[in-house]
Amino acid sequence: MRPRIIIVGAGFGGIAAAQALRRTEAEITLIDRTNHHLFQPLLYQVAGAALSPADIATANRALLRRNKNIRILMAEVDGIDTERRDVCLTDGRRLPFDHLILATGAAYSFFGNDAWRNHAYVLKSIDDALAIRAALLGAFERAEQCDDPAERQRLLTFAVVGGGPTGVELAGTIAELARTTLARDFTAVDPRRARVVLCEMGDRILNAFDPPLSQAARTMLESLGVEVRTGEKVREIDARGLTVGDQRIDAAAVLWAAGTEARPVATWLSADAARNGAVRVAPDCSVPGHPDIFAIGDVASFDDGDGPLPGLAPVAKQQGRFVGRLLAARIAGKPAPDRFRYRDYGTMAVIGRSRAVAEIGGFKLKGLVAWLAWSLVHLMLLVDFRSRVSVYVHWAWSWFTYGRGARLLTGYAPGPGEKPRAAVLPDIEAEVAAE
Amino acid sequence: MRPRIIIVGAGFGGIAAAQALRRTEAEITLIDRTNHHLFQPLLYQVAGAALSPADIATANRALLRRNKNIRILMAEVDGIDTERRDVCLTDGRRLPFDHLILATGAAYSFFGNDAWRNHAYVLKSIDDALAIRAALLGAFERAEQCDDPAERQRLLTFAVVGGGPTGVELAGTIAELARTTLARDFTAVDPRRARVVLCEMGDRILNAFDPPLSQAARTMLESLGVEVRTGEKVREIDARGLTVGDQRIDAAAVLWAAGTEARPVATWLSADAARNGAVRVAPDCSVPGHPDIFAIGDVASFDDGDGPLPGLAPVAKQQGRFVGRLLAARIAGKPAPDRFRYRDYGTMAVIGRSRAVAEIGGFKLKGLVAWLAWSLVHLMLLVDFRSRVSVYVHWAWSWFTYGRGARLLTGYAPGPGEKPRAAVLPDIEAEVAAE
Repeated sequence: MRPRIIIVGAGFGGIAAAQALRRTEAEITLIDRTNHHLFQPLLYQVAGAALSPADIATANRALLRRNKNIRILMAEVDGIDTERRDVCLTDGRRLPFDHLILATGAAYSFFGNDAWRNHAYVLKSIDDALAIRAALLGAFERAEQCDDPAERQRLLTFAVVGGGPTGVELAGTIAELARTTLARDFTAVDPRRARVVLCEMGDRILNAFDPPLSQAARTMLESLGVEVRTGEKVREIDARGLTVGDQRIDAAAVLWAAGTEARPVATWLSADAARNGAVRVAPDCSVPGHPDIFAIGDVASFDDGDGPLPGLAPVAKQQGRFVGRLLAARIAGKPAPDRFRYRDYGTMAVIGRSRAVAEIGGFKLKGLVAWLAWSLVHLMLLVDFRSRVSVYVHWAWSWFTYGRGARLLTGYAPGPGEKPRAAVLPDIEAEVAAE
Repeated sequence: MRPRIIIVGAGFGGIAAAQALRRTEAEITLIDRTNHHLFQPLLYQVAGAALSPADIATANRALLRRNKNIRILMAEVDGIDTERRDVCLTDGRRLPFDHLILATGAAYSFFGNDAWRNHAYVLKSIDDALAIRAALLGAFERAEQCDDPAERQRLLTFAVVGGGPTGVELAGTIAELARTTLARDFTAVDPRRARVVLCEMGDRILNAFDPPLSQAARTMLESLGVEVRTGEKVREIDARGLTVGDQRIDAAAVLWAAGTEARPVATWLSADAARNGAVRVAPDCSVPGHPDIFAIGDVASFDDGDGPLPGLAPVAKQQGRFVGRLLAARIAGKPAPDRFRYRDYGTMAVIGRSRAVAEIGGFKLKGLVAWLAWSLVHLMLLVDFRSRVSVYVHWAWSWFTYGRGARLLTGYAPGPGEKPRAAVLPDIEAEVAAE
């Protein structure tokens, strides 16, 4: 009988593993809660109404069409039976495995303040991005109809918590949406007066970069009109804003990009976990004590001697390919590599339409040249040709016109905390009254 | 004081009226429940996962950016006070007008069987289209995981009620989705065995066309594998299928495209209404007894001597332009045209990837040549350049690959009857159990 491999999660890690196993004589099952692979580094552009979901996501079945040894299941896993070697699904089914690759990623963590989850938006899925888009566009539409100056200013205020790449990209894209795309489109309000606040607890934003690049990013954000606040802790988030340090900021939407937490794989396996819940893995990415169970990407904590690897797409992708090749070799009875080595091609963060910071192989870039490097890399990395063409068309068009093609408010975007919400505008009054 | 014009509805009629009034010295307010204008003739391609919402919709504010005399409100109207000449909004506000243009369109009518609304999908908005898309793609995903042969066949059965252009286009696009795009993508089920049933109560489909074209359309649909049933009435629609004539058809989704009903403008005005609820209007599109209130598009019943004009985009567009010009002339103190005349450039219906039927100025076309005419006309009509480029890229790509770029199942698509619904797959068991 051919060995059974189960891969849980169709992110960068899971897809890379499946692709590396394409020619292996095995029965592979890929399980994911959604039907698509998401190019997460561009998700903030869906939130910012510059791209459509289909520009950055591809159906798993389309992506893995050439993999004849794979079965794809849209389902949710809620446990692993390590004794019987079964993956347990939420609907009660059990799927037996010989080898297991866990690539379930991470979710946002509110550091114990779970009530904040109901008031702050996060950015992990397409639904999250569409919810943020609806909140942003809806706030301008409400402000246009609001007669109370204080409430109008609140509706034009957006707070982003967390000064990492996601927080920086979100703050930049909101500022540009307000100052360019929407600038001329309202009668009663001037979107250019929108206030975008980026709150970082540490003493500088983008702390994974060199301090001079952090400073350059801060200057670029400020030139877009973003108010950058560092060294202050968020004390409270509620339905009408947040408190940072001693200051109350009334806001239409609070976006949370401050910290992530691995999904509960360590609990499923009763395995040793790092502080963020990620499974501490061996040098071959296997879970100690379970040589046939591997954890990769954000759900794994891999120490390469320099501390744990960062939660980045290239880490997940390289680990997925490594584990896929390892299993392919093991199944073919060939010698398998025994130690994963991360190749760091550099990191980047983008700030608006034509500015970025990047550290690439010792080079430190900023401004337009960094942005050009960033857009080239992301265009090349996008998974299939169609997305590339479509993204290129949208970008080119946005570039020349400052227009955003995906400015659609549809009725069923979920609010923060993932509750589905009915049409955005008709219940303004009800909502304000209820608060 | 400049005259106040209110336009209700940003469909083809409302937008055309606003554009015709661009240079008029007036205070214009455009009210719509959504923030976007929708190119409805291509909506079925969003439902069929071939196009993204942003490809066929444009923000009203972007579309009317050059109109300096207009204010756009995202709000919902629920009445007209003809005495005080106020438009009443659902939030209690009242907006006074001197001239009023009602262009609120039509909704689907279930001919008194309102319970069916909870079980059948309709296609009027982007949310509707995304709900249909989720129902189609979700059904294949569920079938892939289903062990019961009867239930699996139900999950691969789709019924469309109504043999007009929308019904024909939906049936054709579902059949092609199953037979080409998805054909190779599943392991346990063969999507090519999906059953698509088109039910028409009358004795032929597309009864607005010449009988030979109806027959040609039927043959084309049948060659795509669609089962066309005519002359039978739908007796029941429930959560697991429908009954047509004497036959029970278990289906994963029932799509309703059988009849429309004008929105309640006639009731608001206590005006004379046609059978479908549309306001009977005078030759200048005004509502009899209210010379300053106009009704255009699907909400109006305009008799040009040959019976009422059909509910088509060109009728709404031409009436909008006519009323806009009439008001512009009246306000400028110039002689105004007093009689709307519809110019019929022809009608078309598309059946799948490269086939259509069309009647254009006496010419009757079918097959590829009709499809080419159709795609040219629709591409030219698409409202802005960006959409044209993007739609062209998607079409070209789909054409060469049979792939569909927008195959995304996201978690919050509403079910039929517009109830928001949680993630599509995890609750299969619960849902089946509850039925």
